[in-house]
Amino acid sequence: MIGIFDSGYGGLTVLKACMKLLPQYDYLYLGDNLRVPYGSRSPETIQQFSEDALKYFFDKKTPLTVFACNTASAAALPYLQEKYLRKPGVIDRKVLGVIIPVAEKAAKMTRNKRIAVVGTRATIRSKAYEKELHKLDPSIRVFGVAAPLLTPLIEEGWHNKPEARSILKKYLAQVKDFAPDVLILGCTHYPIMHDVFEDIMGKSVLVLDSSTAVAESLADYLKRHPEIESQLGRNADAAQPGKRIFTCTDTPEQFSEFAEKFLGGEKVIATKVQL
Amino acid sequence: MIGIFDSGYGGLTVLKACMKLLPQYDYLYLGDNLRVPYGSRSPETIQQFSEDALKYFFDKKTPLTVFACNTASAAALPYLQEKYLRKPGVIDRKVLGVIIPVAEKAAKMTRNKRIAVVGTRATIRSKAYEKELHKLDPSIRVFGVAAPLLTPLIEEGWHNKPEARSILKKYLAQVKDFAPDVLILGCTHYPIMHDVFEDIMGKSVLVLDSSTAVAESLADYLKRHPEIESQLGRNADAAQPGKRIFTCTDTPEQFSEFAEKFLGGEKVIATKVQL
Repeated sequence: MIGIFDSGYGGLTVLKACMKLLPQYDYLYLGDNLRVPYGSRSPETIQQFSEDALKYFFDKKTPLTVFACNTASAAALPYLQEKYLRKPGVIDRKVLGVIIPVAEKAAKMTRNKRIAVVGTRATIRSKAYEKELHKLDPSIRVFGVAAPLLTPLIEEGWHNKPEARSILKKYLAQVKDFAPDVLILGCTHYPIMHDVFEDIMGKSVLVLDSSTAVAESLADYLKRHPEIESQLGRNADAAQPGKRIFTCTDTPEQFSEFAEKFLGGEKVIATKVQL
Repeated sequence: MIGIFDSGYGGLTVLKACMKLLPQYDYLYLGDNLRVPYGSRSPETIQQFSEDALKYFFDKKTPLTVFACNTASAAALPYLQEKYLRKPGVIDRKVLGVIIPVAEKAAKMTRNKRIAVVGTRATIRSKAYEKELHKLDPSIRVFGVAAPLLTPLIEEGWHNKPEARSILKKYLAQVKDFAPDVLILGCTHYPIMHDVFEDIMGKSVLVLDSSTAVAESLADYLKRHPEIESQLGRNADAAQPGKRIFTCTDTPEQFSEFAEKFLGGEKVIATKVQL
């Protein structure tokens, strides 16, 4: 079973990309929609909430867990890696975040060495993308913009309306002045507005969707780590999809309805769990 | 000490109105911004969060507490009244919600017996205003609309921008068709957009601001209940303001900054508390 953790609904974009690229594995999704949104909370609170989620996956013994949430990856994962994961002998508790795979892809793609990041307040404040990009190439210049209204607009289904486009245009005004050639969508909700981002930024800017980057990185990781790969549950017929289990921390009916619509065709019956 | 409870920042509009009308009393404000927003959560969760807050005020021995949050008043207060407050001998645990005072004022003001309510998803789903209005006058017709994007727009400071106006106009389209003569602002954030509501609805519709209605109802309650009034802390000089204590459950610096700006002049140093 591969664990996928998000603060709410956004991580479904990552799950969708993973299920497309690696359909044969079993997936366990957890959306902490009882305490969503994480993006405007303090670092200590994000660490505490993410630790609760991590313990849930430890309890479920998922050999590999993906922190699909940019905010949790940026503001909590380094702390949790230190506390739980970088211990000698700990081999059955692997956690992949979204920051490193996306930063690696962005660093590979940029030509003018100017990369912009759009994310939640907490993700931008953490400078997590900047730190990873500078590890890869200290000459890269990074510009981050918090876009806190995008998530509610997308969750409310307003992403195709002119008001959402107009708000995004205002958020991106300074990004355009910065003139990057890669723009990182640093929140799992944003791929839903991928086309609008592309349209506003123009053809010369690559809009980097974290969900695909994470799925590709997961596939690569599993190739390089057969000792983890062999522990994952899967469908015996590799052409057939594995099990999908959906859990959330509030309003399971609402979660199921949203997830079903979003994943398109997948039957979803989410269970409420307590963290 | 008068307790004022809200799920986050919105209740400051109620506090401001109360401090203006009844400045001499001491106030203790609690904003549960660790778990905000309440408005899109399940009724059970809103009840649990509100119960935690109520226990905080019990612990602080506030003789009177105002549930300034429409969502908590609508979805949790009836449950909490039943569980804690309507017990024989319980005289030192008074809680006033926002629904009844606002419904009473609305019922008094309407001429055409058509009243509209705008609020969070949870407030509209609870039909709390409808129930109270029908107790007062069963012939009143009520139309409720959930406007979940308004709170993030206001909290992000976009309320004066054309996108906020345009979004509000779309939310109010059906309300205009319903042709009420009173529109209840059923969320403590909305008074910040009072002028925009009035402008969209036109001069023939009274836009009813819950903060003023609640402050007036509080003043009236204290007049009718000297046994409660006498227990409240206050400035000995009735012309001088009493104490103001601000508590919240996350990011106290951010809370203080916002509250200071919003209350205009009041020095705010909020303390973080755990519920």
